[in-house]
Amino acid sequence: MPLGERAGDNTESRFCGVETGFSDDMPNMLNRHLVSGKFDFVVAPLMDPAYRPSLVQKDTFGSAVLPFAGSDLVLSPSQWSTHVVGKISLWIDLDSEDETLRMDSETTLRQEIAWASHLSLQACLLPAPKRASCANYARCVNQILQNLNHMQLFLRIPLVMSDDDSLGADSETLVDSWETWNSFRLLCEHHSQLSIALDIVSTLPSANSLGRWFGEPVRSAIISTDCFLTNARGYPCLSKRHQMLITHFLNHAIQIIISGKSVHPRAILDPDASHAVEERHPLRPYLDYIAYLYQRMDPIPEQERFELGYRDFLQAPLQPLMDNLEAQTYETFEKDTVKYSQYQRAVCKALLDRVPDEKASKITTILMVVGAGRGPLVRASLEAAEETGRRLKVYAVEKNPNAVVTLNSLIRLEGWEDTVTIVSSDMRHWNAPEKADILVSELLGSFGDNELSPECLDGAQRFLKQDGISIPSSYTSFLQPVTASKLYNDIKAHKDLAHSETAYVVKFHNVARLAPTQPVFTFTHPKPSDTESNNRHKKLQFVIPDDTGSAIVHGFAGYFDATLYKDVHLGIEPSTATPNMFSWFAIYFPLREPVCLDRGATLEAHFWRCCGSTKVWYEWCVTSPSQSPIHNSNGRSYWVGL
Amino acid sequence: MPLGERAGDNTESRFCGVETGFSDDMPNMLNRHLVSGKFDFVVAPLMDPAYRPSLVQKDTFGSAVLPFAGSDLVLSPSQWSTHVVGKISLWIDLDSEDETLRMDSETTLRQEIAWASHLSLQACLLPAPKRASCANYARCVNQILQNLNHMQLFLRIPLVMSDDDSLGADSETLVDSWETWNSFRLLCEHHSQLSIALDIVSTLPSANSLGRWFGEPVRSAIISTDCFLTNARGYPCLSKRHQMLITHFLNHAIQIIISGKSVHPRAILDPDASHAVEERHPLRPYLDYIAYLYQRMDPIPEQERFELGYRDFLQAPLQPLMDNLEAQTYETFEKDTVKYSQYQRAVCKALLDRVPDEKASKITTILMVVGAGRGPLVRASLEAAEETGRRLKVYAVEKNPNAVVTLNSLIRLEGWEDTVTIVSSDMRHWNAPEKADILVSELLGSFGDNELSPECLDGAQRFLKQDGISIPSSYTSFLQPVTASKLYNDIKAHKDLAHSETAYVVKFHNVARLAPTQPVFTFTHPKPSDTESNNRHKKLQFVIPDDTGSAIVHGFAGYFDATLYKDVHLGIEPSTATPNMFSWFAIYFPLREPVCLDRGATLEAHFWRCCGSTKVWYEWCVTSPSQSPIHNSNGRSYWVGL
Repeated sequence: MPLGERAGDNTESRFCGVETGFSDDMPNMLNRHLVSGKFDFVVAPLMDPAYRPSLVQKDTFGSAVLPFAGSDLVLSPSQWSTHVVGKISLWIDLDSEDETLRMDSETTLRQEIAWASHLSLQACLLPAPKRASCANYARCVNQILQNLNHMQLFLRIPLVMSDDDSLGADSETLVDSWETWNSFRLLCEHHSQLSIALDIVSTLPSANSLGRWFGEPVRSAIISTDCFLTNARGYPCLSKRHQMLITHFLNHAIQIIISGKSVHPRAILDPDASHAVEERHPLRPYLDYIAYLYQRMDPIPEQERFELGYRDFLQAPLQPLMDNLEAQTYETFEKDTVKYSQYQRAVCKALLDRVPDEKASKITTILMVVGAGRGPLVRASLEAAEETGRRLKVYAVEKNPNAVVTLNSLIRLEGWEDTVTIVSSDMRHWNAPEKADILVSELLGSFGDNELSPECLDGAQRFLKQDGISIPSSYTSFLQPVTASKLYNDIKAHKDLAHSETAYVVKFHNVARLAPTQPVFTFTHPKPSDTESNNRHKKLQFVIPDDTGSAIVHGFAGYFDATLYKDVHLGIEPSTATPNMFSWFAIYFPLREPVCLDRGATLEAHFWRCCGSTKVWYEWCVTSPSQSPIHNSNGRSYWVGL
Repeated sequence: MPLGERAGDNTESRFCGVETGFSDDMPNMLNRHLVSGKFDFVVAPLMDPAYRPSLVQKDTFGSAVLPFAGSDLVLSPSQWSTHVVGKISLWIDLDSEDETLRMDSETTLRQEIAWASHLSLQACLLPAPKRASCANYARCVNQILQNLNHMQLFLRIPLVMSDDDSLGADSETLVDSWETWNSFRLLCEHHSQLSIALDIVSTLPSANSLGRWFGEPVRSAIISTDCFLTNARGYPCLSKRHQMLITHFLNHAIQIIISGKSVHPRAILDPDASHAVEERHPLRPYLDYIAYLYQRMDPIPEQERFELGYRDFLQAPLQPLMDNLEAQTYETFEKDTVKYSQYQRAVCKALLDRVPDEKASKITTILMVVGAGRGPLVRASLEAAEETGRRLKVYAVEKNPNAVVTLNSLIRLEGWEDTVTIVSSDMRHWNAPEKADILVSELLGSFGDNELSPECLDGAQRFLKQDGISIPSSYTSFLQPVTASKLYNDIKAHKDLAHSETAYVVKFHNVARLAPTQPVFTFTHPKPSDTESNNRHKKLQFVIPDDTGSAIVHGFAGYFDATLYKDVHLGIEPSTATPNMFSWFAIYFPLREPVCLDRGATLEAHFWRCCGSTKVWYEWCVTSPSQSPIHNSNGRSYWVGL
């Protein structure tokens, strides 16, 4: 039974499982956990734990039947696949010094996975690596992954990280389980069917260290009953940090699995039950608590619900100069009221600065909207004029002839004919009849300059007065390194160079932000010097917080912040983002190969903005701690046309 | 004029160049250096060193002619391309803090390379990076490389490595110039047109550190006159270490370029010249000394001359079980007399051990040659019998019906009909009429077990007596990490996964061996236990000597050593290789991506030998200092058929 109904949530995290021991009576076992216990699925061993291939007598060869827990006649294939996650024998140890154990382990692992495939299970849970060096385990799992049907393999990983530097290094003690995962996953080349089941224990590592897991393919979190505290009524509950973590999991489509024995005997005696004779499932109070956490979560806001389908989905950025936007795209952008009210505030302030109150009725300010689209900035400017009582003459310059049709209708409809002149032209080539006091534009991409605002405004600057104002007056791009396994895998699936060095527009969700953002390129308008080039080069150094531990970087998340006028800004840089604005998702610059960072490392990267005669592009590379190739040389894979 | 004639050498290293200053009279300058100086080519600046794009007056724009040294009318294109290497302006500095200098540098670099392309020069010499951080220089060169014609770019790198650990790290002091090269080359993705001109200075770093360069694309070595000592007669000469280095360069197709001013004035006065008025080229004595070193080199031995064409050339290993060898291949292998005399020695010792002198005339030893081919091991065995005076009955088992034809002729020709029985069969399936005392085979590949000797001998063991002898009695494979830029590039050119995780047979020449070999897999015959599997797993740890400095690993060189019988061995492992044996080149296991090692690092790698029902294959990976994917999972790219 799902944990509850949460508006907008249709992810797997509504379903909760329970880890069980071996049973050769699967129907009864399922009945107990699913019907009496109300769990949605069980994580159950598939094979008698006493089985060892080397102990099977040679002479039974050919006639021996493997000691599996129930066949596909006992439960139907659909029951198996809906309700059972296969739990691979815990004793297997492919990196043991003991050769017999090693060989038994490999044989059993293969037999169990083959059996799980036969039953069409959706997933199997692989036992946690028993030692830091697990290359042979990884080799065997990797071989299995190459020929696997749709099944997922969840590698069980305890959520531990010691803060103590004195441990580790030489000792075999597991210091940071993320490193074990990382090593295993790199050996298996980020295989998309290899994911993680995190074992939650009572002591949680630092928040920065936990953060790493949200960029990883964590599919489930196994929470032991030992983690639960006891509330005043004798019922299980979780610490605040555990609650936050579980809520975070539920918000990231991670399923919860309850594990262990009941340690809250009082809670099993259901006080509400008049029929106390009926035996209650011992783990039911834990499930109830998780359901309580789930139901307590805020509903997903409407705007976010709309964006759910875009989460961690790679989109090619717009080519606004080469392509004309469609009506639907204009309509979507125009709904972003926050953005236009910021523009209106900026125009207000500019008008007030430009025209003192006493001259308000005498001076007519010339305002040009360059890239007017279907007119939202024209409207915002006119409303600013009205609000401030300033006289305005507006030129609405737009290169898309289709948008000009709509714009024309709007002006007639609103009766703006006397104030607004439509110019159907590319601002870079228009010969303006007079010069402007204020130039208003919205040509910004997710990375600020990536939709070629600098080049367009260079063209428009010709018809701005010497002391004229550009809104925006400047904009800066920002970057930060991220772990984003899903994006890496989605790009890798294309199997070509071009996709692996293209920037994408992305609504980040399953991502770990490894360091605060840093500013990259800034453009100021009007341009201080005519000869200043729009080429840029920036060396960035990101210090990964020490308590994060080691980490992997799949690429860089990019944002912008624009100063519209004086203190009026607009942007998506996380720490200063304009609230409730949805016109821009972030941008993602992938790395062709992920870069591993040791604890406390500094990541050094270079970004270039390069301008050619027909296009603008970015190149980027990592230079420390290791050296990547230079990405997108000459814009071979990704560029924006002029 | 070439340095001399060296039998067998037809490489570029016969030609010697001279570095010159800027001259606007190219014909005269060429005449002086090539005719009077006897050099083969000059390395000359293409552009007036005083030129700076930012100093060119704006108003000359459009009419300005770039100040190049002579045009293609002054010298013909063929003179340019044969005799001139273009020297890019020394002042350029693309990573300077000074923006004007940075922009001037980029403009000039592009203009000079474009000009050199226009003249069809074979190569340009790029100035050494002026600082350790040279990402922008690399970005610009990388852009140029993407669109370059056939021209090579030689990056000038001073041959220096400080042994002092206290330097470096934070300081901008260049500690290990190999790291600068490595960083530059990684940013440019091992581009095949980017190579090295090493600047030789008077102090040479350690031998291990020098060794690294022989795995790199070094095309020329620039030796300054300052490096030369003065001999008793006042002539220039080099220290022993410099001599060895230069000889090594000449042996690796690396061209020498003399640089600097004469510091041996006495040497210019040619004592033999009666016409002392004629002015001698001031650098001629240095050229003469290099020519002397060249002429002093040993001629290339005949066997090596035959192998020249195979140097650093990737060959697919044989599939001896699936394919039948051709007559020519048999003939080539049979010429390896060293190999067969080792076999004869082994059979002698085995016969003496098996049959005491007093029983020599009574006992007939049953010897089976499995994989008899055209008969060389049959001959070696019969000669051993004759040498020891033992009676022998030989079964010659061969699966290739074509080889059996030849074998049959041989036996008639030699009159061996009474002693030798031909069996046209696969040893794995033959039903022998009696059991053998001695089983002789030569089924070894470059990596020992890679031609499936273990599987074949498992099949043949059925007809070996309990106390019988197998020759070979055991064999072990060996591996060592190597730098091999050329092999990496050749593999990368295929642009597919399969080639990058296939083992190749290679005659290594331009390769840096980074650590001593280590044993990998051992097979013993007869097999101690019937049930022992032929699967293997080995974890290897290679410690890179501290004075090597940092290094890059492109893959592993593999070898074998076989114990034929007791102290008679046969092998290609470098430290114990059987002299003058040519049947086997080494094997090469590439890494899909090279692995960088810091100074003093330990490289940890895993190798597996995996057996399936129809094939045998290897998998491999690196686990430290970084984690590679597991190569060749399930033998998807490379396998040997059973």
